[in-house]
Amino acid sequence: VAVTDRIAAPIDATLVTQAVTDSREHEHTIVRWRRDLHQHPEPGFGEFRTAALIQRELDALGLTVRIGGSAMDVDAIYSCDETRIEASAERARQQGVDSDLVDQLQREGTAVVADLVCGEGPTVAFRVDMDCLPVTEASDVTHLPAREGFRSLVEGEMHACGHDGHVAIGLGVASLLAKRRSSLTGTARFIFQPAEEGALGGARAITARGLVDDVDYLIAIHLGLGYPTGEVVARARFLVTSKFRARLAGAAAHVVNAPETGRNALLAAATAALGLHAIAPHGQGWFSVNVGVLRSGDEQGVTPAWALMDIGVWAETQAAHDYVVARVHEILHGAGSAHGVEVDIEQIGGAPAADDDEQLGQLVSATAAQIPDIDQVRDLIICRAGEDATVFLNRIAEQGRRGVYVLIGSDLAAGHHAHDFDFDERSLVTGTAMLTAVAGHLLQREVSG
Amino acid sequence: VAVTDRIAAPIDATLVTQAVTDSREHEHTIVRWRRDLHQHPEPGFGEFRTAALIQRELDALGLTVRIGGSAMDVDAIYSCDETRIEASAERARQQGVDSDLVDQLQREGTAVVADLVCGEGPTVAFRVDMDCLPVTEASDVTHLPAREGFRSLVEGEMHACGHDGHVAIGLGVASLLAKRRSSLTGTARFIFQPAEEGALGGARAITARGLVDDVDYLIAIHLGLGYPTGEVVARARFLVTSKFRARLAGAAAHVVNAPETGRNALLAAATAALGLHAIAPHGQGWFSVNVGVLRSGDEQGVTPAWALMDIGVWAETQAAHDYVVARVHEILHGAGSAHGVEVDIEQIGGAPAADDDEQLGQLVSATAAQIPDIDQVRDLIICRAGEDATVFLNRIAEQGRRGVYVLIGSDLAAGHHAHDFDFDERSLVTGTAMLTAVAGHLLQREVSG
Amino acid sequence: VAVTDRIAAPIDATLVTQAVTDSREHEHTIVRWRRDLHQHPEPGFGEFRTAALIQRELDALGLTVRIGGSAMDVDAIYSCDETRIEASAERARQQGVDSDLVDQLQREGTAVVADLVCGEGPTVAFRVDMDCLPVTEASDVTHLPAREGFRSLVEGEMHACGHDGHVAIGLGVASLLAKRRSSLTGTARFIFQPAEEGALGGARAITARGLVDDVDYLIAIHLGLGYPTGEVVARARFLVTSKFRARLAGAAAHVVNAPETGRNALLAAATAALGLHAIAPHGQGWFSVNVGVLRSGDEQGVTPAWALMDIGVWAETQAAHDYVVARVHEILHGAGSAHGVEVDIEQIGGAPAADDDEQLGQLVSATAAQIPDIDQVRDLIICRAGEDATVFLNRIAEQGRRGVYVLIGSDLAAGHHAHDFDFDERSLVTGTAMLTAVAGHLLQREVSG
Amino acid sequence: VAVTDRIAAPIDATLVTQAVTDSREHEHTIVRWRRDLHQHPEPGFGEFRTAALIQRELDALGLTVRIGGSAMDVDAIYSCDETRIEASAERARQQGVDSDLVDQLQREGTAVVADLVCGEGPTVAFRVDMDCLPVTEASDVTHLPAREGFRSLVEGEMHACGHDGHVAIGLGVASLLAKRRSSLTGTARFIFQPAEEGALGGARAITARGLVDDVDYLIAIHLGLGYPTGEVVARARFLVTSKFRARLAGAAAHVVNAPETGRNALLAAATAALGLHAIAPHGQGWFSVNVGVLRSGDEQGVTPAWALMDIGVWAETQAAHDYVVARVHEILHGAGSAHGVEVDIEQIGGAPAADDDEQLGQLVSATAAQIPDIDQVRDLIICRAGEDATVFLNRIAEQGRRGVYVLIGSDLAAGHHAHDFDFDERSLVTGTAMLTAVAGHLLQREVSG
Repeated sequence: VAVTDRIAAPIDATLVTQAVTDSREHEHTIVRWRRDLHQHPEPGFGEFRTAALIQRELDALGLTVRIGGSAMDVDAIYSCDETRIEASAERARQQGVDSDLVDQLQREGTAVVADLVCGEGPTVAFRVDMDCLPVTEASDVTHLPAREGFRSLVEGEMHACGHDGHVAIGLGVASLLAKRRSSLTGTARFIFQPAEEGALGGARAITARGLVDDVDYLIAIHLGLGYPTGEVVARARFLVTSKFRARLAGAAAHVVNAPETGRNALLAAATAALGLHAIAPHGQGWFSVNVGVLRSGDEQGVTPAWALMDIGVWAETQAAHDYVVARVHEILHGAGSAHGVEVDIEQIGGAPAADDDEQLGQLVSATAAQIPDIDQVRDLIICRAGEDATVFLNRIAEQGRRGVYVLIGSDLAAGHHAHDFDFDERSLVTGTAMLTAVAGHLLQREVSG
Repeated sequence: VAVTDRIAAPIDATLVTQAVTDSREHEHTIVRWRRDLHQHPEPGFGEFRTAALIQRELDALGLTVRIGGSAMDVDAIYSCDETRIEASAERARQQGVDSDLVDQLQREGTAVVADLVCGEGPTVAFRVDMDCLPVTEASDVTHLPAREGFRSLVEGEMHACGHDGHVAIGLGVASLLAKRRSSLTGTARFIFQPAEEGALGGARAITARGLVDDVDYLIAIHLGLGYPTGEVVARARFLVTSKFRARLAGAAAHVVNAPETGRNALLAAATAALGLHAIAPHGQGWFSVNVGVLRSGDEQGVTPAWALMDIGVWAETQAAHDYVVARVHEILHGAGSAHGVEVDIEQIGGAPAADDDEQLGQLVSATAAQIPDIDQVRDLIICRAGEDATVFLNRIAEQGRRGVYVLIGSDLAAGHHAHDFDFDERSLVTGTAMLTAVAGHLLQREVSG
Repeated sequence: VAVTDRIAAPIDATLVTQAVTDSREHEHTIVRWRRDLHQHPEPGFGEFRTAALIQRELDALGLTVRIGGSAMDVDAIYSCDETRIEASAERARQQGVDSDLVDQLQREGTAVVADLVCGEGPTVAFRVDMDCLPVTEASDVTHLPAREGFRSLVEGEMHACGHDGHVAIGLGVASLLAKRRSSLTGTARFIFQPAEEGALGGARAITARGLVDDVDYLIAIHLGLGYPTGEVVARARFLVTSKFRARLAGAAAHVVNAPETGRNALLAAATAALGLHAIAPHGQGWFSVNVGVLRSGDEQGVTPAWALMDIGVWAETQAAHDYVVARVHEILHGAGSAHGVEVDIEQIGGAPAADDDEQLGQLVSATAAQIPDIDQVRDLIICRAGEDATVFLNRIAEQGRRGVYVLIGSDLAAGHHAHDFDFDERSLVTGTAMLTAVAGHLLQREVSG
Repeated sequence: VAVTDRIAAPIDATLVTQAVTDSREHEHTIVRWRRDLHQHPEPGFGEFRTAALIQRELDALGLTVRIGGSAMDVDAIYSCDETRIEASAERARQQGVDSDLVDQLQREGTAVVADLVCGEGPTVAFRVDMDCLPVTEASDVTHLPAREGFRSLVEGEMHACGHDGHVAIGLGVASLLAKRRSSLTGTARFIFQPAEEGALGGARAITARGLVDDVDYLIAIHLGLGYPTGEVVARARFLVTSKFRARLAGAAAHVVNAPETGRNALLAAATAALGLHAIAPHGQGWFSVNVGVLRSGDEQGVTPAWALMDIGVWAETQAAHDYVVARVHEILHGAGSAHGVEVDIEQIGGAPAADDDEQLGQLVSATAAQIPDIDQVRDLIICRAGEDATVFLNRIAEQGRRGVYVLIGSDLAAGHHAHDFDFDERSLVTGTAMLTAVAGHLLQREVSG
């Protein structure tokens, strides 16, 4: 059948019912995966144990698994936190992850992309992210993971954004589709992306390997984000974002004996900070620019010879974003030049605006509406955050294929990134069912009459 | 005789006595000149009536008078205030100054340089300035010029720094030397310089005509400056100074509809102002930099597309001055560049550091010590002000000749530049005597035995 | 009849047809008014000749006219430009406006509020503004007012926003309703407001006299604003705006002798300007803040003792506006305090957010849809500008009555406020017809059966 | 004898010769002390091993030793670096210093003040400092301490300013005077001060115990400071200095969702930094102010809620210093207030201006002139640095007693505070001789005739 036929076809109620039933049967396994991952949070590009777990499970299900260099190109990433990655590698080895694998993934990246190949036909891809946040998890008994014994084992690292749940859903959908493999055709692809937090370039690195070039439908997912258990959003959009690190290099001077020989990087940074926050508004789109970190100088008696600034930009439109980014460069270099200070600007993160597909959104909505535990379906919302799944969606849209970003509502114990964040695990089952049904519909093997 | 002989020779007491007697006889004329000038103050490069008066008096005394283009080169000036000059020209014509002369001086400049040629021998030059200040003179009876009827006839213009007295002394010395012409050899030169206030370039313009290139001894003078009647300072030194006008050109934008298209000259100027005042101290010399004037923008709803800044620099040493000036340019251009704003910097005034001559200073001191009304003589002091007589002194020093800047103390009614400034006219007589004696000594015709 | 009955009643086609016919018959008069006003532009609170013309015409039509102090309270205005007003008064006298009336209006204000009283019943009010802009009108023949001979007679003043047309429409509606007076009941009120530009407080001053307290329906109007001839917008909304003038008072000091005694108002202003432009974005509403004017200091050698800043704020929501205004005060006072400088902040203009009435909007839409020359009707749009008609709309809404701001589309020769702005005079006739029909419907005398 | 008699008395050549001979005999011991201290550098208020060594040596010489709380009052100190002190305590214990003593000194402070009591008579005090710098010492063989095997045993701590030499001289003078005790009367006091670097308050703490209240003559010393071996400066003066730490507390906000709720400490700090560097010059004294350290914020996506600034002030005069300090407070609080940020300013160091005594200076000069190895003696110089010995000198002067700060010239391998700093050990012997002779003169027991 032609790809365009399936998306427009009415969804088969039996298929939805089957997915719901299957997912309920797998609930225990899905929750077990989630809790295991929750106890072992790993930072962006340091998801060693996570990737090994995914590889092991999908291998067992008969999927074709790419890992490391075959799944991503590390040259395409913006930046990473070497210290956190090294600590994560050390922990992974101690926890029994194969040391050679850890070495390989530390060199090549931690992405896992696995295919369930079911014959000729379209490719449906799911993108889930796997990284945690540099947060120390709450330990009091009011916090469910603490009470139930699956609190993070690592001080300073925590799955505080639900990516543990995303991986569990991804594995769940793979299990359910693998079980029904004979009734499917085409390919179901599971993209486990490292380093979503900070938009460090995980999506760019996988895209650079061509791994979405042959995808016909792509669904990226997120739990929660303000929507309660029982709600689904078929198309979520995000702000355009870029993150920069500026390093300013001046010259030290003894401020009593020869202050005139100094080149004051601290004053250049202060001037730039004020200038950056004073970027004129854009008539066609709200934006926010923030100098979130400033470090400069070592001693009271010495002209500060260095400064470091971390700068984030978030904008409603690509035009507003690009305008701000151009101004950021202009202001930093101008402020440096005013103070005789060299400025080096490195992009350490970023995610573009993206188009999504209305018709795929309608399929998600129609499917969700048939799931018993989903009582509210929204079509289109804008999230006030960045998300580099947009890199995949853009690549998909460039090729005339279809992609959407789906929110799976979930009651939260506290906001995303908080130390007492926790989501409602019932969403894992519902989400797995819904995504399995959508994939089942798109990949359904036609019964020849 | 050799020039070097005369300066070292002991001063002849008779010569001093004669100068004192002569100057007392001329007191009435000198004071009349001063009061006439005081009533008719004229701004820098607008000294039309003043120049005409000087020309007339010195012609009558038999001096060779250069005026306008033969006394200065207008291309060498930094800047001038066209509006004040035009008003001054209009007044001069109404007061009967020859209209052709006013036209000529408005084109060529208002300097007057006159020589009393007495035969072979050295050239002794006196430099006096002639411009007034944009101040409205006090009118109450406690102010002597008001009480005695010679208050400024021009609202907004006033001789508030004693330059009227300087011209009167210059004319007085010329009169006394002309009277004793037969006993002299060599040349006495009188340099009446326009536009000392603001260091607009009067000294540069006269120097550019080569009019100090053949001078052997140069004495610049000033009344008051904190020293009372009866005191003399043989060598005064000044701060190095520069004045700049910066014009910033950005782009206007409607701040609601398209603020992103603006280039904000006001923010560039604000950034620059803070940067300019934050120039790091210099280890080898105090300085002061000041943004004295800032103008920017026209409407609340429009991004300010223009700004104007007037900036002054004063420094104890040439090194500190040059450091600050380099930073001024760097900061202005950097701030402009940070805001996408074009910056044009024009130097509108300036005066360098200068060396003076110890031996000529000793001659002045020795002579002053013999004047009955002078009871205190100082050798060397530093004035916290700029003064472009340093341009002459530098040119003199470059050629290995001798120059000093002499202060003639005078009791003041109020500080320099104040609207109720007034000096003690007795200083005119004392100053005339002292300078006449010094010139008489240097130009004394040797009686061949 | 009850007021609420009339608004919901279907509009009578005959009434619309009659208004269209009547307005076409009055076209010559309406255009004549407009061109006469265009030639005689008058600034905010200086609309002397304009007010006199309105008074004369409405008197002749039998309306009850309030003018000056009975129409507005000058104590409620924010600010005005005395220089432009004085020049306007002088011109008005020369053009034959009664000198006593000019004196009265200069004291009491130039508002005119006139009632066409037709019996018991509701009050329908129209608000038009009458002031011009400080723009010199284009004089080339491509500019229709120049070609047709009704270009502004005043250099530097121009009706560049269409308020001449607003007054002509107001007089037109009054004429048409007066003609059909016998078929009406209730009151038609015509509010001619001074000083809309800059939101100087004209609307506040009229509201302060209680003149909208008894109004049941209020319609404010504007021509153009981006909508072409043939379009109507039933409900236009505006940005919230405030305008401030800050005066900073420091202390002068000689920057060489005693710079430490200065209190630098220029640096305080520069600090404040950077801070004001760096106000953090608001999560619930775009805004723009602009320091449009900065003046400070007089001389290079003196610490600037004063500064003046004109600051404008425009915001999408009242919350964002109020947040920005609070920050403006905080930043100005903080910057002043950092530099030991006194800060005085005066509000010189402002207009709040306003609610409008959906049902009255529907009546306008329904009526407009029946006018032959109107081919497109929009319900609700947001204008990126401030407009103090919101003061009236707020007062109306507070009392549970109904108000809307109606845009009458008009092809423009150039943008609003441009020196070659001109609108399509056909809109005057269409607008008059539409407003007359709406008023006719609301005030229609019931035929007792 | 009367105190005033001895200072004016001509110095006895025999006494000088004896001091020179004695000091040469002690050279080995003095150098050994110095090298031992050099290997065991200890930070300000962490001089545990140093104090223990001093106590042991002076006990052995028969001096009365105060240590810890009897020598200083910790409440009078400005600040200290707990981390460096703790590490130093740990090292001291490992090196065998009595653990109870370390505990005591960590609580009470590390000062040692010891008296050599010789009978009735005046008190002559010597002040030496004992702390090191946070510098890692050079390790190459061109660096003498490395070559000779007495390089610092502690990475990151080094005697890079010669205080090891000061202690050795102090012990040397004590040894020499103790040897000649029978010929002396009065008291020789040795003040070993902790924490001179950074002016953390060591001098204040000793003064607070009243330990200079009964001192008649005080001599503070320093090696090097630009003067070569063989030179002595009888009276050195220093800049007035203060050091501040400012902590700014704002409020964090998610810069996308609710930026308006943030209180940006980073922008407040940037504003303050620019303002602090833009403090207007002082007409009566050069100064330098420096924001040497700025830290703010943690994440790109969060409004920085905190900032820390370390600020140093150095001034030629107390007036200029006090002016700058007042401005520092004003600017920090103003900038904080502009951004709604709390500012807390803590003084973490400081040293005042001080008067010294001309007559005691003359005695030092006269004595130095008789030392064979001293070939140049200067009277009075100004050091471009701060030094809290001024606290002692001030206390002495307040009581009408005499004090001076003496420089003992020494050839340096590299500048003070450099990692390859080293001085010429011959200066230790010369310095010991000179100071012993001065004390010997002042304390000389009169032979009754």
